[in-house]
Amino acid sequence: MSFQKLDELGRSLGALEHALAILAADEATQMAVGGGEARAEAMSALAGMHHRQTTAPEIADWLDAAENETLEPDHAAAVREFRREYTNRTCLPTEFVERQMRTRMRCEQLWRDLRPKGDWTGFLPALEGVIEFAREEAALRADATGLPPYDAMMEQFDPGNRVAEIAPLFAELKSFLVDFVPNALETQQNRLKKTPLRPLSGAYPVEKQRELGLAMMAAVGFDVTRGSLSVSHHPFCGGVPTDVRITTRYRSNEFLSALMGTLHETGHALYEQNLPTEWAHWPLGKARGMAMHESQSLFVEKQIGRNPAFWEWALPVVEKHLGERWERDEILAHVHYVERGLIRVDADEVTYPLHVILRFEIEQELIDGSLAAKDLPEAWDARMRDFLGLSTMDTPQDGPMQDVHWPSGAFGYFPSYTLGAVIAAQQWAAIEREMPDVNQQIARGDFEAVNAWRRKHVWSQASLWTTPELVERSTGEPLNVARFRRHLEKRYGA
Amino acid sequence: MSFQKLDELGRSLGALEHALAILAADEATQMAVGGGEARAEAMSALAGMHHRQTTAPEIADWLDAAENETLEPDHAAAVREFRREYTNRTCLPTEFVERQMRTRMRCEQLWRDLRPKGDWTGFLPALEGVIEFAREEAALRADATGLPPYDAMMEQFDPGNRVAEIAPLFAELKSFLVDFVPNALETQQNRLKKTPLRPLSGAYPVEKQRELGLAMMAAVGFDVTRGSLSVSHHPFCGGVPTDVRITTRYRSNEFLSALMGTLHETGHALYEQNLPTEWAHWPLGKARGMAMHESQSLFVEKQIGRNPAFWEWALPVVEKHLGERWERDEILAHVHYVERGLIRVDADEVTYPLHVILRFEIEQELIDGSLAAKDLPEAWDARMRDFLGLSTMDTPQDGPMQDVHWPSGAFGYFPSYTLGAVIAAQQWAAIEREMPDVNQQIARGDFEAVNAWRRKHVWSQASLWTTPELVERSTGEPLNVARFRRHLEKRYGA
Ligand SMILES: [Zn+2]
Ligand SMILES: [Zn+2]
Repeated sequence: MSFQKLDELGRSLGALEHALAILAADEATQMAVGGGEARAEAMSALAGMHHRQTTAPEIADWLDAAENETLEPDHAAAVREFRREYTNRTCLPTEFVERQMRTRMRCEQLWRDLRPKGDWTGFLPALEGVIEFAREEAALRADATGLPPYDAMMEQFDPGNRVAEIAPLFAELKSFLVDFVPNALETQQNRLKKTPLRPLSGAYPVEKQRELGLAMMAAVGFDVTRGSLSVSHHPFCGGVPTDVRITTRYRSNEFLSALMGTLHETGHALYEQNLPTEWAHWPLGKARGMAMHESQSLFVEKQIGRNPAFWEWALPVVEKHLGERWERDEILAHVHYVERGLIRVDADEVTYPLHVILRFEIEQELIDGSLAAKDLPEAWDARMRDFLGLSTMDTPQDGPMQDVHWPSGAFGYFPSYTLGAVIAAQQWAAIEREMPDVNQQIARGDFEAVNAWRRKHVWSQASLWTTPELVERSTGEPLNVARFRRHLEKRYGA
Repeated sequence: MSFQKLDELGRSLGALEHALAILAADEATQMAVGGGEARAEAMSALAGMHHRQTTAPEIADWLDAAENETLEPDHAAAVREFRREYTNRTCLPTEFVERQMRTRMRCEQLWRDLRPKGDWTGFLPALEGVIEFAREEAALRADATGLPPYDAMMEQFDPGNRVAEIAPLFAELKSFLVDFVPNALETQQNRLKKTPLRPLSGAYPVEKQRELGLAMMAAVGFDVTRGSLSVSHHPFCGGVPTDVRITTRYRSNEFLSALMGTLHETGHALYEQNLPTEWAHWPLGKARGMAMHESQSLFVEKQIGRNPAFWEWALPVVEKHLGERWERDEILAHVHYVERGLIRVDADEVTYPLHVILRFEIEQELIDGSLAAKDLPEAWDARMRDFLGLSTMDTPQDGPMQDVHWPSGAFGYFPSYTLGAVIAAQQWAAIEREMPDVNQQIARGDFEAVNAWRRKHVWSQASLWTTPELVERSTGEPLNVARFRRHLEKRYGA
């Protein structure tokens, strides 16, 4: 009986989530510019209904009762995830959430204004307010979950992620990369001395790039009857599992950024499209957190899409759509291009983790109070010099002002990006062990077996396990960076 | 205090209505084919939330209290419309609504299957069920409103519409048209003997038709920052006032159907875009019913878009976009083409009212029980012969099976179409009285003054008055068919 109430709640929440997801996708792709204010009001009211429905006090009673009922295993698992969601959503007082939301929104708006100007001084007071709230939030979440504060923040994004496990792995990865990046750059330089980069200039009409993207999406497994590709300023994967909305952005003078972006979002989409439909209206039926989601996008973008074998198959497809012939090594020189840079979102897969580890280290200090917001530029600059030999002291817009995460209050999210890359490498290694001919399959454009493995081990599991459990059950190994290191060494080493 | 509760209710309902409107537009234009089931579930759950919120018993208390408070005039008007909506929504028991909904949905599905086959016998039992419910509904609505049953049905669509007023007008219009149609056809035949119709064949690329449509929309006043034009199988005007979604459908061998359809939907859109924003979240702020809405679409489509003066301005625009030169009288021969036909939605403005009056007369007999569903084919055929000299005895798909309205239970809606045409003619007459040079304005593509008149007299009034009150206040005359008759005589007479 109690379970049935939770089940009905799930359907009602599912309807609001469906509306919010489609309204968000619509806003980015279809909405008239003048429609923004009414849309924001409508979405905020719907989010309020969702919040009231997810935090209703009677849910606690239903959960207590359901936890004492004898349930089939998947209902029991569903109750566990209902409980997790309920705890995550009710551990902050409503009044706190509202004050925090106003502070975040002001800070995010200010960030949009001041980042282009690099006005750190103007931005700092607002950021201090957000960090103050984040510390309080972490303490409240720690109380509710019994976890250390930063763990309690990460728990929202990836259940089971713990600093005690991640910090050593990130430390290992950092010390590896600090040495490896210069080596990879030198190797690249030697290679480019022999064979200079073939420039990607020329005209790539948007409509043809779109057809190419759609062909690649369908080939790697995207179900075009349950999703679509359109254009937005910031690419995303949104919508709902039965109607996944991918977007990309085209530049007519090159085709790789849109194509690799489309492959990345396709990776996210495959996860959504292949979640178990019978659980769709329960938290249990959702994708397991941000790190696992990013592992799926990076699997398609990096493990498949930057794999030399992939381009054996892909280059004729490119030629067919764009009318331009490329040799495999010519294109690999582009898609494997490594560069030291200041901006995380522009980083390649070799340097990217250093950007994340920098934030992970700093975030913990911000949350535990050992670092003050006003000391961020120095703390950032010091690590940037250590990690990549670059300075951001004079350009805060390329330093601690570069990401929306902190102004919007998302502390504990950054690790997911690099964990995703690490997990994707573990998954690829597991697949290679099981299917030694996987590269030959991919070279002929056959992604069936790879997708079958991912469906069985990842997609069908939805939120049945915590993130670390799911990593271990799917790959046969606990979370570790060895596979990712070997992946980088093989692809970028001497 | 009570008013504030109604005000908050309005915002909450507005959010759900916003979501439902955008989800519906998205479904028709963007949704992946496989997304339909989950979309239907989500929309039905959101509609359920809307229903529960609009029919909550405490609203009756708020209304009672607010009606006894001293309120500013627009708040008092808002309360009156909140009350009207509450009465319309609560006069049917929930259990009745659910049973009726199932019967309607089954009948509508059956209609989609059986209409193409003309299978009246297979369809009849389902239609009988829907009519049974409609009679019961009319009785319940009559009880709640104190109106006669059929009036109580019309009241949902056009507050204030009464058979006692409409029936004599429709009778006058019918007897006029039964004579006028043959005369108009003869006049047309004589004209075409002299100057044969210039055929509209040739290639009209969809993209160019779209640009033409957008140019015309903008010219007649559509605000492109608060709306858009896209493609769907069934053209509609949807979305929300700040983001009105118009759709059309293109045929590449002719351009007039898409263009006139776009002008029609633009008429609906102008009404929505120009409703008073300060009332937007109250029922008071909505467009006043279906007849008034149709008057706005028909005003743009027929009074403006089929006006000879309009084409003085429009033909160079057509030439610019489609690269084809037309003379005014050549195009008028197309847009004024009159034809006897069986299908309402294909009818021209001369014959269309006869299709509506036929349904209006039959509907009343269906609701008062003097006509049984099984006798519909004969009743339809008899009137069709009287009105237009055509028979549908052997083709029920072109007779009583042609519209979705009855299978879906929408009794009392049909009159709105012709009332819209009648009201549009009254509005045009009022404008001509006030601005004798209106045709010259339109001939130079200047729609400012016409739109200013409509904004002042119609759009800004939203739901401040009943439909007949609004007609009289805006045009200076009670609802009458004289203006529409004169309009037809002038345009189609000898
Ligand atoms: Zn991603
Ligand atoms: Zn219409």
